[in-house]
Amino acid sequence: MTKVSFLNDYSEMGCPEIIEKLSQIKLEKNLPYMNDLHTKNAKQYIREKIGDLKAEILFMTTGTQVNLVAAAAFLRPHESIICVEDAHINVHETGSIESTGHKCIPVKGSYGKVTVEDIEKVCGPKYWDNAGILCVKPKMVYISQTTEIGTFYTKEDLIALRKVCDKYNLYLYCDGARLGSALACSDVSLECLAKYTDSFYIGGAKNGAIFGEALVILNDSLKTDIGFIAKQNGAVLAKGWIISFQFEILMQNGLYERNGIHSTKMAMFLYERLKELDFKFFVESKSNQIFPIFSDKMIVELKKDILFDIIDEYDNHRKIVRFVTSWMTKIEDINYLIDRIKEIKSFKNLKR
Amino acid sequence: MTKVSFLNDYSEMGCPEIIEKLSQIKLEKNLPYMNDLHTKNAKQYIREKIGDLKAEILFMTTGTQVNLVAAAAFLRPHESIICVEDAHINVHETGSIESTGHKCIPVKGSYGKVTVEDIEKVCGPKYWDNAGILCVKPKMVYISQTTEIGTFYTKEDLIALRKVCDKYNLYLYCDGARLGSALACSDVSLECLAKYTDSFYIGGAKNGAIFGEALVILNDSLKTDIGFIAKQNGAVLAKGWIISFQFEILMQNGLYERNGIHSTKMAMFLYERLKELDFKFFVESKSNQIFPIFSDKMIVELKKDILFDIIDEYDNHRKIVRFVTSWMTKIEDINYLIDRIKEIKSFKNLKR
Amino acid sequence: MTKVSFLNDYSEMGCPEIIEKLSQIKLEKNLPYMNDLHTKNAKQYIREKIGDLKAEILFMTTGTQVNLVAAAAFLRPHESIICVEDAHINVHETGSIESTGHKCIPVKGSYGKVTVEDIEKVCGPKYWDNAGILCVKPKMVYISQTTEIGTFYTKEDLIALRKVCDKYNLYLYCDGARLGSALACSDVSLECLAKYTDSFYIGGAKNGAIFGEALVILNDSLKTDIGFIAKQNGAVLAKGWIISFQFEILMQNGLYERNGIHSTKMAMFLYERLKELDFKFFVESKSNQIFPIFSDKMIVELKKDILFDIIDEYDNHRKIVRFVTSWMTKIEDINYLIDRIKEIKSFKNLKR
Amino acid sequence: MTKVSFLNDYSEMGCPEIIEKLSQIKLEKNLPYMNDLHTKNAKQYIREKIGDLKAEILFMTTGTQVNLVAAAAFLRPHESIICVEDAHINVHETGSIESTGHKCIPVKGSYGKVTVEDIEKVCGPKYWDNAGILCVKPKMVYISQTTEIGTFYTKEDLIALRKVCDKYNLYLYCDGARLGSALACSDVSLECLAKYTDSFYIGGAKNGAIFGEALVILNDSLKTDIGFIAKQNGAVLAKGWIISFQFEILMQNGLYERNGIHSTKMAMFLYERLKELDFKFFVESKSNQIFPIFSDKMIVELKKDILFDIIDEYDNHRKIVRFVTSWMTKIEDINYLIDRIKEIKSFKNLKR
Repeated sequence: MTKVSFLNDYSEMGCPEIIEKLSQIKLEKNLPYMNDLHTKNAKQYIREKIGDLKAEILFMTTGTQVNLVAAAAFLRPHESIICVEDAHINVHETGSIESTGHKCIPVKGSYGKVTVEDIEKVCGPKYWDNAGILCVKPKMVYISQTTEIGTFYTKEDLIALRKVCDKYNLYLYCDGARLGSALACSDVSLECLAKYTDSFYIGGAKNGAIFGEALVILNDSLKTDIGFIAKQNGAVLAKGWIISFQFEILMQNGLYERNGIHSTKMAMFLYERLKELDFKFFVESKSNQIFPIFSDKMIVELKKDILFDIIDEYDNHRKIVRFVTSWMTKIEDINYLIDRIKEIKSFKNLKR
Repeated sequence: MTKVSFLNDYSEMGCPEIIEKLSQIKLEKNLPYMNDLHTKNAKQYIREKIGDLKAEILFMTTGTQVNLVAAAAFLRPHESIICVEDAHINVHETGSIESTGHKCIPVKGSYGKVTVEDIEKVCGPKYWDNAGILCVKPKMVYISQTTEIGTFYTKEDLIALRKVCDKYNLYLYCDGARLGSALACSDVSLECLAKYTDSFYIGGAKNGAIFGEALVILNDSLKTDIGFIAKQNGAVLAKGWIISFQFEILMQNGLYERNGIHSTKMAMFLYERLKELDFKFFVESKSNQIFPIFSDKMIVELKKDILFDIIDEYDNHRKIVRFVTSWMTKIEDINYLIDRIKEIKSFKNLKR
Repeated sequence: MTKVSFLNDYSEMGCPEIIEKLSQIKLEKNLPYMNDLHTKNAKQYIREKIGDLKAEILFMTTGTQVNLVAAAAFLRPHESIICVEDAHINVHETGSIESTGHKCIPVKGSYGKVTVEDIEKVCGPKYWDNAGILCVKPKMVYISQTTEIGTFYTKEDLIALRKVCDKYNLYLYCDGARLGSALACSDVSLECLAKYTDSFYIGGAKNGAIFGEALVILNDSLKTDIGFIAKQNGAVLAKGWIISFQFEILMQNGLYERNGIHSTKMAMFLYERLKELDFKFFVESKSNQIFPIFSDKMIVELKKDILFDIIDEYDNHRKIVRFVTSWMTKIEDINYLIDRIKEIKSFKNLKR
Repeated sequence: MTKVSFLNDYSEMGCPEIIEKLSQIKLEKNLPYMNDLHTKNAKQYIREKIGDLKAEILFMTTGTQVNLVAAAAFLRPHESIICVEDAHINVHETGSIESTGHKCIPVKGSYGKVTVEDIEKVCGPKYWDNAGILCVKPKMVYISQTTEIGTFYTKEDLIALRKVCDKYNLYLYCDGARLGSALACSDVSLECLAKYTDSFYIGGAKNGAIFGEALVILNDSLKTDIGFIAKQNGAVLAKGWIISFQFEILMQNGLYERNGIHSTKMAMFLYERLKELDFKFFVESKSNQIFPIFSDKMIVELKKDILFDIIDEYDNHRKIVRFVTSWMTKIEDINYLIDRIKEIKSFKNLKR
């Protein structure tokens, strides 16, 4: 992979601080199954940061795994999850939620976000008319921060969702695969997220960790036996500390936040440059994923030495593309991309 | 339930021929687990009727049960079912498909029916772009004959669906809860259904049986060990003959077809009467369910001595209602209903 | 099936009282989904009989179904069921418990019954040593009354099991497929069963009903949303009353008990006759299943005109066989069987 | 964890060669979802080593995960797994096999190994008598190399198992969590294992890798869509290369084998020393786990500065303990342990 890449935020090993720490502890012997000191420390740092010293915390290996363990642990068989249509659990986790026996109830959403109206529609009296036990029971709202299209929930959004969740006795669960960037662009802190949700996860792999995600459970009634459910789903590493030492580092000295700020800044820098070049965007994202609209010709040329994804068709000669930045993205990468775009534009202009 | 009822087609015990047969065989001893003669006969009659003497046939107790056994038996864990959004399996079976681990992929459909275009969209290259193993794999198309809104697939429809299913290596499965009425109003015979689908079920409970449905499997590769899967899901009666004797009767002398013709005729008679009274319909159904649009006032008055369901709002003073007829519906019931409607209409007119 | 049969207690349609009632109500229209009067009555009669007016009651179609719905409804994914090795759920329900995701923990038992010692072994400190989240969590004890080998729990047994279940926070669940005979031979009444278990089911199909079993839930915390779980598993008949009217009859005028007394008496009569003929028994059963030990020669001869099952080898020329009686067994059937045995014995004696 | 440890073989990070490689590639960008070069290389090296260039290979994070993915992918819902009673999947993976819907059929085994007789008993005619669809269908034999008690299958064992598996149409699957040591002590090479099994996994975490296991599928009919099933179970790392680079190293220059030889040698050295001191053993293991029998007094003293596990009681004053060695175990550790034992023994002798 020698091309400059804006393909995703999971092409890199891990940030220097983590690689260095790994090197330091390489000869340690640690107790298995999360009974080690790194795990103890990592949990403590997270608890302090979110302002809940009783939070239950579990370290797992993939986001899909965390989401399916949460579904399996939190829900009874007939209980289902409300999410937007393009939610990761609904379209890009190979039916893992359904494989645990639970149904996703997709709602339209607005700018990639579940709205209060969406929930009212699914949980209100109309959903239940003539139905009763024939319908699955909505029990959890799944949101992701940031969303699939790079937007984010504000504190106000969360407060409103919490209120409607309380009204209908629903859990509010947040997928934090890209929480690093969300912290940088939104007014929602880790503490705020912990206040208004029942559970969420802190994404490591896309924000500096080699791998690993941290499930955080705030709601006491959801904590019982969570370790059993994780183990049953193959989500418990005997060498638990090889994930938790990473969170031990990420949660100290603002490293997690710094990584998110960097990736977000890089995306915004690129966003501004593209704006100057009069590109339109599919959605106004402020996070580390941006979605400009490029002509098919531009895409063909650019693909020659830049890696990025095409998301969808926009019209019959343009497409929505995705550029993703990470903790490792360099300003030079962006300048190179912008220069290439300018070249292609001017070349095309000359030709015509 | 003393009111005249158009609530559904499952309010009655069973048609006289079945009640009588039950009485005749009440002192018999029969071998368990479908090893009895009634089961042998019922299978034979069905096989002859559908023109496939090798078809595998299983008698079960509910439609939900048949559908979930089919999903569990036919699909691997990552394989999913394409169906219309309001498909029974998608909204009114309490997530039973998901409880077997499989995802439903809802498509828009047209007049309640899955279209070739729907399938092309889900199975074509766009679905798989950037996705691969992240997406569930479409593997079965679920249709119902008649549909949730009383429409039906034509022979031409089935041929087209078969073709696109073959193109994408999909099974075509038909829910026949209301197959009795479908036989009466469509050009699709049992033989035709058996020719173009991989599996379907013949609904008993809504067409004369006390209870019981017959799963029919045509595709050889789907027959293996189906009995195990049924038993695992609690769908095997030790006294198997108490379902199969009913199909033994229904499948002789055209009883099943006759029941369907009666209910359909009754519905069409009511439909014509309502047309004469200038009622509009939500959908042009030709089967034993019809969906006129009634004013809220009409509904309130009518509910006083007629049983029927309200399906949805139509506008701010009218609703879509449902009238269902059955093998037991009498012409007097319909006349009574029409008279009541006329009374209410004239009364309202007088009042104004 | 023209031979005299002691094959099982599910070869007959249903007792005369039920067949007659069916005939009486054959023209009724009833509200669907258990909202009818027969269901209301049947629930009320059961509640009165068990002495718990708040008990939740659900009518389903097979014992396997009731057991799997109970497992799915009562347990979280990592929670498991303690049962004897030859428990129906462990060996003869095609892994239905596992298909809901739960593990059975088989224990040795004594005379077919789970003992306090069995439970102590599985739940005590040794089970958990070095294990913790690596092991499934025992959460429910499954017993059946009568057991697979015709024995039964006494009131004293139940009190002891209740105590150890309370000690380890376990549910006590009783499979009542053959509860009819158990009521006749044990000192455990329906009221007693309701007092000491969290849930049990009253078997209909083997004690006079055409089909149908009644799940009874006593423990309040297990009642929530049980209907959803039943529907999700295809266990809810739209025509709910076709099961409940049978329990309406069975639970009146001591019919259920009478059927059980008859089958049990017939078994005991046969047992005494066989004792007189010096046959040994595999186990001293007092219920409607008895297990004598027959020579291979006797079995070959007897099979010519009597239906019965071979259970296992006893030694190299004898086998354990099973004779089952039912509400329909006649004294003449037993006399016929005994006469045949005598004939065969004398014939063999002559020959030698 | 400062004490000398024989607790397990998963207390250490990873062998020096892997730590070094990680350091070398720390700045690389790699394509996601196993489309990178490290994965390509690792697969190729494994295929060459096992002598099957068409083998399907998947890298996952835990042994439990590999086992459950195999169960979910290879089996239909009613198909079950034969294993010894103390098999890891049966007792120490929190019911993960059952959570995929499949039943384990435990057999007695001999010295921790499944025998041909065990399989004959479960698959032969007696299992199916009177049962048919009421029983789960045995479809896969699960073995582990080495076993839970440190024993191993010989080439002759494998040939015999293959034969009986072919007879009954069963898959033979091998859990290779401790395959490293098995290669060192048995006559079964990777090539041999690939020849006689349908699938197995190569354990990384206990033999030098930081984490990661490699599922190998030989049987063509089991390869289809395995990636989907892995993803559905949260077993697919977006950064796939962080596991595969480790196997890239382990599979070159005999590193994997060397690690296994070292741990096994260390265990054998300890075994010989204990023999010299007249200790008895629970089982004659030749692999990296040994199981001596120690007095309670010895255990209490030794626990003060040595870490090891107690497995079970042996008699009323002795216990079976477990010492595990790893690629990192030093001869000094063993000498220290032996010296301590000698001290304790002589001290006790003096005292008496």
